[in-house]
Amino acid sequence: MTRDANTGLDVLSLDECCDLLVRTPIGRVAVHLAEHPPAIFPINYFFDGHEIAFRTKPTSLLHRADQHTVAFEIDGVDRLYHLGWSVLVTGTLQEVTGHSEIIRLASLPLGPWAPGPKTQWMRMSADTITGRSIPTPSVP
Amino acid sequence: MTRDANTGLDVLSLDECCDLLVRTPIGRVAVHLAEHPPAIFPINYFFDGHEIAFRTKPTSLLHRADQHTVAFEIDGVDRLYHLGWSVLVTGTLQEVTGHSEIIRLASLPLGPWAPGPKTQWMRMSADTITGRSIPTPSVP
Repeated sequence: MTRDANTGLDVLSLDECCDLLVRTPIGRVAVHLAEHPPAIFPINYFFDGHEIAFRTKPTSLLHRADQHTVAFEIDGVDRLYHLGWSVLVTGTLQEVTGHSEIIRLASLPLGPWAPGPKTQWMRMSADTITGRSIPTPSVP
Repeated sequence: MTRDANTGLDVLSLDECCDLLVRTPIGRVAVHLAEHPPAIFPINYFFDGHEIAFRTKPTSLLHRADQHTVAFEIDGVDRLYHLGWSVLVTGTLQEVTGHSEIIRLASLPLGPWAPGPKTQWMRMSADTITGRSIPTPSVP
């Protein structure tokens, strides 16, 4: 485990980040489009090691963020011990339009949680993946 | 409880959103500054009904987002039943510089979770507060 001297936080390895991305069911996408206030949307998603795929409603703000660079975040918190970790991914959102790609994505174990027609598949390239955690206090 | 016909989600009242903002220890701020990739930072915070206050490290990206409009989000998830809620706040970040205001904020029960000198207080106006939740399936 590496400690960031600047922040005092432990730096998660790429492997640790990817493992957390695979195991965590819900993440959050931040989008900030012109003429809209900034927003953060929780999503359930699928991470294959390179891309994050998720469903949205056609014409939603997430759909309209097609081709925009966005941030995606997951975290975990221990309220009792004030510990926690977070993983931040940045990349470009892209709507999925290819028929074979939609068929492949639809076969993933990723049903929509929320109601309504989430028929638009989006994918986000994982261009940068970084993670950090609050160090566990050492036992005296 | 109002149902949003467009999304199929239940709309949380302002009172419900404020109650969740008071009771939830960790939220996330999305910032997107020029010449920086977008980012989402988990923070512990204090909400007094009008503003969100938190600490950060001087010169951090959150500190440099002074005067920027940002998004703040909290959520809660039931992994088993695929239920969840989220509250989204938008407003302007402002560094706190007044001595009496810093004294007041320092008296709040809001110690930093992460290590390092989190000596810079920031506040965010809660200009808009909205919340939504996945409807609980009705019992047949």
